[in-house]
Amino acid sequence: MPTTNRQWKLANRPTGLITPDVLQLSETPIPAISDGQALARVKYLSIDPTMRIWMADVPQYMPPVQIGEVMRAFGLAEIVESRHPDYKKNDKVSGLTGLQEYVVISGDEKRAFQKVPSIPFLSDVNFLNLLGINGLTAYFGLLEVGKPQAGETLVVSAAAGATGSIVGQLGKIHGCRVVGIAGSDEKCRWIKDDLGFDAAVNYKSSDWKEQLAAATPKGVDLNFENVGGPVMQAVLDRMNLHGRVVVCGLISGYTKQDPGMASFAQVIIKRLRVEGFLILDYASRFLDAGQKLGMWKMTGKLKTRETVVKGIEKAPDAINMLFQGDNIGKLVVEL
Amino acid sequence: MPTTNRQWKLANRPTGLITPDVLQLSETPIPAISDGQALARVKYLSIDPTMRIWMADVPQYMPPVQIGEVMRAFGLAEIVESRHPDYKKNDKVSGLTGLQEYVVISGDEKRAFQKVPSIPFLSDVNFLNLLGINGLTAYFGLLEVGKPQAGETLVVSAAAGATGSIVGQLGKIHGCRVVGIAGSDEKCRWIKDDLGFDAAVNYKSSDWKEQLAAATPKGVDLNFENVGGPVMQAVLDRMNLHGRVVVCGLISGYTKQDPGMASFAQVIIKRLRVEGFLILDYASRFLDAGQKLGMWKMTGKLKTRETVVKGIEKAPDAINMLFQGDNIGKLVVEL
Repeated sequence: MPTTNRQWKLANRPTGLITPDVLQLSETPIPAISDGQALARVKYLSIDPTMRIWMADVPQYMPPVQIGEVMRAFGLAEIVESRHPDYKKNDKVSGLTGLQEYVVISGDEKRAFQKVPSIPFLSDVNFLNLLGINGLTAYFGLLEVGKPQAGETLVVSAAAGATGSIVGQLGKIHGCRVVGIAGSDEKCRWIKDDLGFDAAVNYKSSDWKEQLAAATPKGVDLNFENVGGPVMQAVLDRMNLHGRVVVCGLISGYTKQDPGMASFAQVIIKRLRVEGFLILDYASRFLDAGQKLGMWKMTGKLKTRETVVKGIEKAPDAINMLFQGDNIGKLVVEL
Repeated sequence: MPTTNRQWKLANRPTGLITPDVLQLSETPIPAISDGQALARVKYLSIDPTMRIWMADVPQYMPPVQIGEVMRAFGLAEIVESRHPDYKKNDKVSGLTGLQEYVVISGDEKRAFQKVPSIPFLSDVNFLNLLGINGLTAYFGLLEVGKPQAGETLVVSAAAGATGSIVGQLGKIHGCRVVGIAGSDEKCRWIKDDLGFDAAVNYKSSDWKEQLAAATPKGVDLNFENVGGPVMQAVLDRMNLHGRVVVCGLISGYTKQDPGMASFAQVIIKRLRVEGFLILDYASRFLDAGQKLGMWKMTGKLKTRETVVKGIEKAPDAINMLFQGDNIGKLVVEL
């Protein structure tokens, strides 16, 4: 059995992408556990845009990661040793494992872990995707905040990403005309041909704004916003009177100084309701949402896709992939 | 009796402030009226930030004014001749008179006029202010969209302007802690000492953000936004979780290319609800709102103030005053 735990620690705060000085790979002994604790080996790390926010010393919804701390990350881990009554060897858990190989789980800690049930049609990476923060964000953000109505036009940005790809499919399940915005022809093909979006617009095309207009002949009733900046602006310009904007993410700005800069002018002109949200506020209903998402997956109404990067040493590169648009679907690091 | 009607026509679209080439003063004969029409002489012109939007060829909530057309403006006018059954000589009306001395009123036209009732405690300029677009905007924007609750902290920007000064007082009537942001010490003194705001912050002070923080020790629950840009950004940074932002105006950007640029990041972090509105949507309830506003004015709970500029030839300068912060309270041109 290995004796060392490799950990990515935050060494310097990034100014743009993750440069080699930002995260430092260090080795420490695998900690011994006490009564009431369990040791878990991380199998998959969830690579999410919000990690870039956690690295920055700016106001945010959780404390920023401090210099010298193990980088915060969601993950899926397997219990290898337990002195905790709720966990036994080979149980799987998901939660804030951190960017490391081993994590100690205590019963009373704040970074709550949930047990991962064994579900025949859901692999571990499917679980991290659909029943992790992406699926839950899509579920509550679209259904509770956005409240899509049949016949409405829904536009989702970062549509081939983990959250966006689920949002669009949930929109179809609820009877919307769904238009996705993504950054490559391959991504556009996937969401249109495989996921059933009504239209897909590649924002790297020179005529993408005209394509967006053509794809939304009745305007936009509901925007699920993951990107911010010029992409958000173009969708705001297509909004209908009294439309709704669910602000989920602003990934275009996370590596810049001014995240999510856009004009509020259309908010007045179109009398829009713009609402931000975080899934943290819906924690008491995760189980319920997970059951619904699982059912749609099982019955083939929801498809998932993952981009798997192998090796913990690749974690910083994987984070950069998010901001360079190099992943399709959920991005995970397999340890 | 005069025979000519002086009119300000839009000659060129402005790029910043109103330069001499933008509006052209021309004289035409006072039109003869037919059956079903009335002729009214404009007494007061309402000078509003939205006029700058109407001049620009950008997407907006009404068609932009076309080159060669009389500039659109609200005003208060007095009937001088009537062949319309609803109007008689000396009746007063308010509505979209245009930036001119005489206006023909027809029964069937879209730019509806309302009769101005004779109210002992309301002068004509009081009427244009409190029962014109400013008072109604304050009323519906704050009470219907913002829904202030007693004990909440309300921040209003452009707080010494026509709308902002009423919003703040309505906030006090509804039990809020009210903080105003304005652009001079004189304006700050007025809203604090005369109107009863709890605090006033001059955004031209070097330490205004610290002043804003000190004035909002419990954060901000409700922001009534008239300004946009850095002022809006500073208030967004002070918002509490699940706070509300009523987006009424973005005056800081109206003479710039990017109106109301600000970051949407706090919308996510604080799970804010941001809502734009226009009083046009509340037209069926103007009478009801007017009665309430009039009652508060009569009982001394609402104070109004007007800056009166004399002479139609001064109208373009008056419009610029708005964007240079040169008015306190409602800005009108007296003809």
